[in-house]
Amino acid sequence: MSKSITTRAEDYSKWYNELVVKADLAENSGVRGCMVIKPYGYAIWEKLQAELDKRFKATGHQNAYFPIFVPKSYFEAEEKNAEGFAKECAVVTHYRLKSDEENPGKLKVDEDAKLEEELIVRPTSEAIIWSTYKNWIQSHRDLPILINQWANVVRWEMRTRLFLRTAEFLWQEGHTAHATKEEAIAEAEQMLHVYADVAENIMAIPVVKGRKTETERFAGAEDTLTIEALMQDGKALQAGTSHFLGQNFAKAFDVKYTNKEGKQEYVWATSWGVSTRLMGALIMTHSDDSGLVLPPKLAPIQVVIVPIFKTEEEKANIDRFVNQLSDELQDMNISVRYDDRDTHRPGFKFAEWELKGVPVRITAGARDMQNNTVELARRDTQTKETVEQNGLAKRIQDLLHEIQQSIYQKAFAYRENHITEVNSFDEFKEVLETKGGFVSAHWDGTAETEEKIQELTKATIRCIPLDNKEEQGVCVFTGKPSAQRVLFAKAY
Amino acid sequence: MSKSITTRAEDYSKWYNELVVKADLAENSGVRGCMVIKPYGYAIWEKLQAELDKRFKATGHQNAYFPIFVPKSYFEAEEKNAEGFAKECAVVTHYRLKSDEENPGKLKVDEDAKLEEELIVRPTSEAIIWSTYKNWIQSHRDLPILINQWANVVRWEMRTRLFLRTAEFLWQEGHTAHATKEEAIAEAEQMLHVYADVAENIMAIPVVKGRKTETERFAGAEDTLTIEALMQDGKALQAGTSHFLGQNFAKAFDVKYTNKEGKQEYVWATSWGVSTRLMGALIMTHSDDSGLVLPPKLAPIQVVIVPIFKTEEEKANIDRFVNQLSDELQDMNISVRYDDRDTHRPGFKFAEWELKGVPVRITAGARDMQNNTVELARRDTQTKETVEQNGLAKRIQDLLHEIQQSIYQKAFAYRENHITEVNSFDEFKEVLETKGGFVSAHWDGTAETEEKIQELTKATIRCIPLDNKEEQGVCVFTGKPSAQRVLFAKAY
Repeated sequence: MSKSITTRAEDYSKWYNELVVKADLAENSGVRGCMVIKPYGYAIWEKLQAELDKRFKATGHQNAYFPIFVPKSYFEAEEKNAEGFAKECAVVTHYRLKSDEENPGKLKVDEDAKLEEELIVRPTSEAIIWSTYKNWIQSHRDLPILINQWANVVRWEMRTRLFLRTAEFLWQEGHTAHATKEEAIAEAEQMLHVYADVAENIMAIPVVKGRKTETERFAGAEDTLTIEALMQDGKALQAGTSHFLGQNFAKAFDVKYTNKEGKQEYVWATSWGVSTRLMGALIMTHSDDSGLVLPPKLAPIQVVIVPIFKTEEEKANIDRFVNQLSDELQDMNISVRYDDRDTHRPGFKFAEWELKGVPVRITAGARDMQNNTVELARRDTQTKETVEQNGLAKRIQDLLHEIQQSIYQKAFAYRENHITEVNSFDEFKEVLETKGGFVSAHWDGTAETEEKIQELTKATIRCIPLDNKEEQGVCVFTGKPSAQRVLFAKAY
Repeated sequence: MSKSITTRAEDYSKWYNELVVKADLAENSGVRGCMVIKPYGYAIWEKLQAELDKRFKATGHQNAYFPIFVPKSYFEAEEKNAEGFAKECAVVTHYRLKSDEENPGKLKVDEDAKLEEELIVRPTSEAIIWSTYKNWIQSHRDLPILINQWANVVRWEMRTRLFLRTAEFLWQEGHTAHATKEEAIAEAEQMLHVYADVAENIMAIPVVKGRKTETERFAGAEDTLTIEALMQDGKALQAGTSHFLGQNFAKAFDVKYTNKEGKQEYVWATSWGVSTRLMGALIMTHSDDSGLVLPPKLAPIQVVIVPIFKTEEEKANIDRFVNQLSDELQDMNISVRYDDRDTHRPGFKFAEWELKGVPVRITAGARDMQNNTVELARRDTQTKETVEQNGLAKRIQDLLHEIQQSIYQKAFAYRENHITEVNSFDEFKEVLETKGGFVSAHWDGTAETEEKIQELTKATIRCIPLDNKEEQGVCVFTGKPSAQRVLFAKAY
């Protein structure tokens, strides 16, 4: 099996698909639009989960679990939310199979076992969770409720791509309930900062924090905050969202609490989520034509050691050295793989670990053992050098830290180079077509203009950055007055 | 809200249901047979997951994720498995909702969006996983495949009970592929030992390791190994199973490998799983009429500290002491909660933490601060004593260890007292009715006898213990010869 992949320049989309499959991250399954997350990909996801989960708990949240099925009547209680997801719902209608008399040995749906009320496979859990919160909340003393759920959800998307858009995906969804509007808004903002922290400091992906326009809001939200990342093909990717839901779900499910003055009030809500889509962002931000580039903090294997030898005695020498180095690295919580498989040649191994994005490779040859050296190769820059064995573990530790910073800086520089201010629609279109990236432009604030620009250019407003400066200008499309720039881009 | 619960003697089943709800572990949802796992219950499950996951990885397994949906044609490929689960399948038939013109504001299933092939919500994942393994396995070099999945599954049970039997539950399912029969059998045995280790050393639940009779086997397995626990009402509970699947799934999905001699062979398989049902076993094994009793290794809060004071100055004194103690305990990785809520009285707090099974309670009163003492209360024995503050953290650490051992010993003594050898069917029935527990009896080895005994007594063969000694005897029911005793019991 060839491990080489299409280059980004040849066909970015094909490069991505091949990389995901050849690096053993995920693959399509026999179920339309559903993926299999393979062990290597899942190991990255587990590390990402652990980083997120730690931060959720540090900010006072607890995990819980709610049913995967949402009775249709619950689902449609909050109308905007229901409408927003209606077109992509998997619906359970029956609960039993029986033998098919016309096709011996086969089963068919038992029409007698029809459910009285259809069940929706959750596309998101606001409805089922708020129908539960109703019973949990009576008094201000029951608030806030700060809950997160790790779960699978299903959205029947017509055009799917591994990690980026799949019919079933894994995610976490936070659902919180608060006594006041201010507290709910602060919660939604806090969780956006948590997401940005993980994106930037763990995934090494620079993100723009911003607010969605009304058109782009989550169905049922009053306000949607987002982190937006930029891929190497100049397209943006929404990497996480945090929603202020106002009292919409509280009203839909009649969730009230008695405040300190004894008065009944509707509860305020937030929800926030990130998904296995982040894996797509991770892959597309850093990887190159040789394969994955992983930030050391998420790499399942941080260091791989490949021995090169001719005799058993040489191998025994290398083994001794590797055992000691491995112990030292493990004591530093650095994960290391000694690839001494006798079924593959070193060149094959180099290519494989490069494809899989292992940040640091050590090559330990028989001559190295004589010279007290090894070859140290760095995945992100594809550079290598001969270094002393003395102090090697510490050197590797420092190098992993440096790689983590370095790939962030590289992605950050690319992103900064791809935020372009434009002042006319011609310029807008030209930048979008030739350079890509975020186009920073004045917009008149109407959904109508937003829609027309999308029709003409396929670009959408990714966000109104939170740190936006006020600036008087005119909409690039209509010439109407505008008080701030917003970020447009083509997006995943 | 009253926190007191029905006693076990009054109504064991009611005691269990009330305990699960009042201790905030789980509750029924608006979806038939599906539960909500509340944060306190989920925290216990997370700890249990971590213990299992650590052991799966230590034995060479990796986690992955496969689709929740199984196309009907895949599902029915292994006939025994399909038949075994056909009566309890949730079936997805449509993928879209639309506005219901007859009921404005409501949605209905869009009949135009009917799936070409129905999808089964996985009741277990052998079918979807083996349809995938087919593409992963060509050569003996691709084996073994050692994969585990943490997932939700759905079995449309008609009579459900929180944790013990729910339409949706959480579990892990290991699915492994091997070159030889011997290796697969060894894998199934190894995982049974892992389950027994976690049950006994983490959950403090003594288990009998055994083999299921053909009647009680997993649908599609050649051999099912089980760990069987005994609840306080004398009923057994199957706590985990590990299956040797032979080549059944490999044949159903045509999964062959080329062996070292270049010959094509079918692959050998195992699967093994434990679920949130273990939560039910945990609750029923140790808890008492005052509430939960949790083994320290799974308690989300291991130590709770309740202050008793009249003045602010007294409170400040206690706070200083508690801060220091908490720091010391946290350094020992002991989780501690300082319950200084001013909304509840100490008596209420005592009852609440007793109900929630916190293993150790410290009461820190104003006079204690003068005397350099505290009151130390132990949940499992409901005993308390006044102890010196000096060396308290270490004392608590030792006590947690002792409690872990002690509740295991108590459960073990109960279990040992409830394995009764009988030599006639009258004795069999009498022991079952008056004492309960495991009845150790000779059986003629036929499914017919097994079935008749079940009809007459509701007892099933829980297992043929792995460490069974050979003993010549005669079947208690038919008088036919038998070479060993098996364990019967009524079961959950």
